[in-house]
Amino acid sequence: MYAVNLARYQRYPDCKQRGLRALPPLALFASKECHYSIKKGAAFLGLGTDSVRVVKTDERGKMIPEDLERQISLAEAEGAVPFLVSATSGTTVLGAFDPLEAIADVCQHHGLWLHVDAAWGGSVLLSQTHRHLLDGIQRADSVAWNPHKLLTAGLQCSALLLRDTSNLLRRCHGSQASYLFQQDKFYDVALDTGDKVVQCGRRVDCLKLWLMWKAQGGQGLERRVDQAFALAWYLVEELKKREGFELIMEPEFVNVCFWFVPPSLRGKQESPDYSERLAKVAPVLKERMVKEGSMMIGYQPHGTRGNFFRMVVANPALTRADMDFLLNELERLGQDL
Amino acid sequence: MYAVNLARYQRYPDCKQRGLRALPPLALFASKECHYSIKKGAAFLGLGTDSVRVVKTDERGKMIPEDLERQISLAEAEGAVPFLVSATSGTTVLGAFDPLEAIADVCQHHGLWLHVDAAWGGSVLLSQTHRHLLDGIQRADSVAWNPHKLLTAGLQCSALLLRDTSNLLRRCHGSQASYLFQQDKFYDVALDTGDKVVQCGRRVDCLKLWLMWKAQGGQGLERRVDQAFALAWYLVEELKKREGFELIMEPEFVNVCFWFVPPSLRGKQESPDYSERLAKVAPVLKERMVKEGSMMIGYQPHGTRGNFFRMVVANPALTRADMDFLLNELERLGQDL
Repeated sequence: MYAVNLARYQRYPDCKQRGLRALPPLALFASKECHYSIKKGAAFLGLGTDSVRVVKTDERGKMIPEDLERQISLAEAEGAVPFLVSATSGTTVLGAFDPLEAIADVCQHHGLWLHVDAAWGGSVLLSQTHRHLLDGIQRADSVAWNPHKLLTAGLQCSALLLRDTSNLLRRCHGSQASYLFQQDKFYDVALDTGDKVVQCGRRVDCLKLWLMWKAQGGQGLERRVDQAFALAWYLVEELKKREGFELIMEPEFVNVCFWFVPPSLRGKQESPDYSERLAKVAPVLKERMVKEGSMMIGYQPHGTRGNFFRMVVANPALTRADMDFLLNELERLGQDL
Repeated sequence: MYAVNLARYQRYPDCKQRGLRALPPLALFASKECHYSIKKGAAFLGLGTDSVRVVKTDERGKMIPEDLERQISLAEAEGAVPFLVSATSGTTVLGAFDPLEAIADVCQHHGLWLHVDAAWGGSVLLSQTHRHLLDGIQRADSVAWNPHKLLTAGLQCSALLLRDTSNLLRRCHGSQASYLFQQDKFYDVALDTGDKVVQCGRRVDCLKLWLMWKAQGGQGLERRVDQAFALAWYLVEELKKREGFELIMEPEFVNVCFWFVPPSLRGKQESPDYSERLAKVAPVLKERMVKEGSMMIGYQPHGTRGNFFRMVVANPALTRADMDFLLNELERLGQDL
């Protein structure tokens, strides 16, 4: 929401005072796999969910730059003014990374604000081995990054990184309330960040990242990221060795998506009700694991696929033994299904 | 922002999808003394700061209901559609309580959403002695209340109380993201609040209020509120006994607003540069107290008044001795001015 508000303000500074009715209809672009916050934010900001144009993704969940071009042309043909593209680095379900270089080319060509929603995947930048997944992010106008996700900083710890050096945040959000943001303080009031943000009373959430970084160092945080990748890949390999598990696809991130196929459904892939029955397995297993208190793994449907599990490896305290336990426990909980 | 978004959605459900451009120009109303978040929120929500019509206040900082009527007529004459009034219970500087019964009458007459910004003053409802300040709040459509202010719950702890019983929150904010808000869980999914709010990953801030309430009881919290009032009034009485202090006005809440008049300015009220010189005193004393580490009291200009101190009594650990210290310390820090 910050990025969208900044992008529209940069293009139309008048809207702060006069509102959206003074502007032409705006269009922003995000992929089919983007986080739901894009549409929710567009509604909240008064743009409406219709302003979000949905760009197609490939079979791995990555935005297709050619379809982005197509959607931009389509929006323009309908009289809307494209102003922002939100690319995703680490989608929620599949953990996909949009091709940022190609998307940045499109944005540059059309003069659009490039926002990267790297809430989930942004921490990968800390790893020399895996940071190539974010190639092109250096061309973004804004990046959202949640250290409270992959780095497991305490909730909430969210950063918005901006290319702007013209104090856009203050111009866009500043209210100059003289009773709070006094100008006659004894120190440099440029250090006061209060008027740059939308919230008033708020916690110093960035301190958690700063402390963690000081304590662990860049190398310590890099180890966390690399270990999460290594464990996810270990889980994938172990999962392939067992009969009752079916991988959705080879992950490129730490989202391991798979079905647990219970004994009664094995070898029945050709049955007409196979998919329907398989989709009912994950909710049953979830109920059992929660009631036993042994695990918590999310599941969801996705596109034409029925419910499957999504194991997200992030906690640095996890070990290979935990991955083995997870597979054993699913087998144990689902042996009678 | 939640209240404003809910109010406009209730009137124009279409705007969630189609945005504000599909609506007539909207107008909301708040007093001159309202919190800056009203205008900031109006900009963020795409309404623009011009949509906020400023209602006059009396000499104590309370909204004048007759002027509210006037502003509504004026907005309508200009072609805008009034939809919400934000009254304030406990303004930031003076601690004023808007006359809610009279404002509710106006809202009822015109069919407007009544929001009460009781972020600061809402906790007064816990006191049998002082709750009359909020008479009429039972007629509000929404109330914002920050237990992290007067009740000193840990930052952040903010509540939005709604009259609606038709699941307006979910209809207004819901995105039905199937990958997060699964409908086939083993418990009643009506208990899931995630899709009612705008944020996604967030802390369970309400737990702080719940724990505090359980630990202190209603009577314990009432004592906190009553003690804050008692201490504020003690401070006022002590302040009046001393030569170098001038009260801005008798407080009705726990905001004690006053000038410290240093020795060199006493008896000089008639000097042409008195106000200008007096306004420079608070920033100097603030610098001194911060550098000594002895106190932290805010100051601000207000209307035609130059900088004055605003002592806000809230911390339940404060005692009369602390009030005496405050006055002594200001005298000590300002004796050479």
